[in-house]
Amino acid sequence: MFKSSVTNLQEATAEQVQEFLNSFDTVLTDCDGVLWIDNNSIPGAADAMNFFRKIGKKIFFVTNNSTKIRTDFASKAQQLGFTATQDEILSTAYLVAHYLKGIGFTKKVYLLGSNGIAEELKAVGIRHTGVGPSDLDSEVGAVVVGFDEHVSYPKFMKAACYLASEECLFIATNTDERFPKSGSIVVPGTGTLVRAVETCSERKALVLGKPHAYVRKFLESCGLNPARTLMIGDRCNTDIELGVRCGFQTLLVLSGVTSIKELEKIRLEKKAPLPDVVLPKLGDLLSLVPPS
Amino acid sequence: MFKSSVTNLQEATAEQVQEFLNSFDTVLTDCDGVLWIDNNSIPGAADAMNFFRKIGKKIFFVTNNSTKIRTDFASKAQQLGFTATQDEILSTAYLVAHYLKGIGFTKKVYLLGSNGIAEELKAVGIRHTGVGPSDLDSEVGAVVVGFDEHVSYPKFMKAACYLASEECLFIATNTDERFPKSGSIVVPGTGTLVRAVETCSERKALVLGKPHAYVRKFLESCGLNPARTLMIGDRCNTDIELGVRCGFQTLLVLSGVTSIKELEKIRLEKKAPLPDVVLPKLGDLLSLVPPS
Repeated sequence: MFKSSVTNLQEATAEQVQEFLNSFDTVLTDCDGVLWIDNNSIPGAADAMNFFRKIGKKIFFVTNNSTKIRTDFASKAQQLGFTATQDEILSTAYLVAHYLKGIGFTKKVYLLGSNGIAEELKAVGIRHTGVGPSDLDSEVGAVVVGFDEHVSYPKFMKAACYLASEECLFIATNTDERFPKSGSIVVPGTGTLVRAVETCSERKALVLGKPHAYVRKFLESCGLNPARTLMIGDRCNTDIELGVRCGFQTLLVLSGVTSIKELEKIRLEKKAPLPDVVLPKLGDLLSLVPPS
Repeated sequence: MFKSSVTNLQEATAEQVQEFLNSFDTVLTDCDGVLWIDNNSIPGAADAMNFFRKIGKKIFFVTNNSTKIRTDFASKAQQLGFTATQDEILSTAYLVAHYLKGIGFTKKVYLLGSNGIAEELKAVGIRHTGVGPSDLDSEVGAVVVGFDEHVSYPKFMKAACYLASEECLFIATNTDERFPKSGSIVVPGTGTLVRAVETCSERKALVLGKPHAYVRKFLESCGLNPARTLMIGDRCNTDIELGVRCGFQTLLVLSGVTSIKELEKIRLEKKAPLPDVVLPKLGDLLSLVPPS
């Protein structure tokens, strides 16, 4: 484990950077805000990831984004210059299907979310339904909330009606408040919808994504050595918190939702765990790497 | 002030009921769930309110509902058999306009809410705008969230974008989780939308309705004698909490959102203040009144 008084990697000596690179075998990285924003690769991110791969690090992409199935994530990564296979991708749409299959769920899912979840459910043989024009479906045994840009009042209402039955499971992919965006626009994240459904149902969702227990257990079952794993993210209350809870090392990049000002606020108000090291963006690592 | 060990008024002696009736001069009553549900009067509620008026009690209707202007509330009450004038109605749409006028607000309101608020704003000369197709309006200086059955993702997004400016005020009419309904249907209340906007904006709204500070100050400014005021409601975390915080007596009716089972849960979990007295529905009071 890399232990240093240096939190800004840019201020580290060449020796310290080398020590940092030697201190982990596995890299877990968030996607939105670290590798890309929307459909634009963040400059240098692909080179940095390719460098990790070149020096023998094992790589996993761990995303709270629930809008895509794993093959689509891999395709997107490849289009943006990254190397990625389906098996290296852990997305919340996949986690939902994995969780429900794991508990032997045989009823139907009421889905307030996008196609990624629908397709992952289908892949494990779990049926789902949406808001539709019809009455409540007596076969529904779980409400799943993910990202849904077509959210509506009737969708909230139907979710709350299903959740009035205590037997109905309540699952959320993640509770990220916002998506990382360039510029001043604020793009509400899945957390916005989850909090809405929690309010009208007067229940708390089981959240599967970062930093919650299910994704942690999933990662632990992958046989990682926590002390030699690095978690990279752009958000302290999901990525860094996951890393801290799992005993990973953590690297925060400031290319996504967390600005340097926001990081200072988190530090002062103790709103979330702090990272071990910080970089403006992932690509900045390369210029710090000592020549071999 | 009526002080008794009896919390179920139906178990009170005729003498205790008379003592209760003698203990207040003013009746503040919630509307949805106490007087009516949707467009149906709750049996006996109008008779009970008319009885209060007959024995000389002063009456105010204090509602968190923001969908109507006060004259429309008065019309609805009259159609359902109640006597009510505009001056007796305190609704959150009116409170929003009263608040903004009171602080000398001259900018524009971005409204995520219904017509009731729009019309009350217009009545005090405050302009408003909605989601529209256009870019952000630089004249907007406040986001107001009320009940809106046409809520959408773009509406949340625009609210969050305006609220990214710290100078932009963030006001909510109320945070009721649900509307009272007969049957098993769950109807999300304004709280559902407020929590959503709070999440994506990463800010807390100033809530004007029951049980929050602004409506309390407003009522205090009306010259009521708290010790001789009765607050009637169907919800412990708004109506009864308002009453308790203001030093009013409180009567909970079980004809709205709070069932006897839910009341027991609130008691056990200390989730909200408890009422002084309870009745299944307001109309049940009349059969308890001693003959004069």
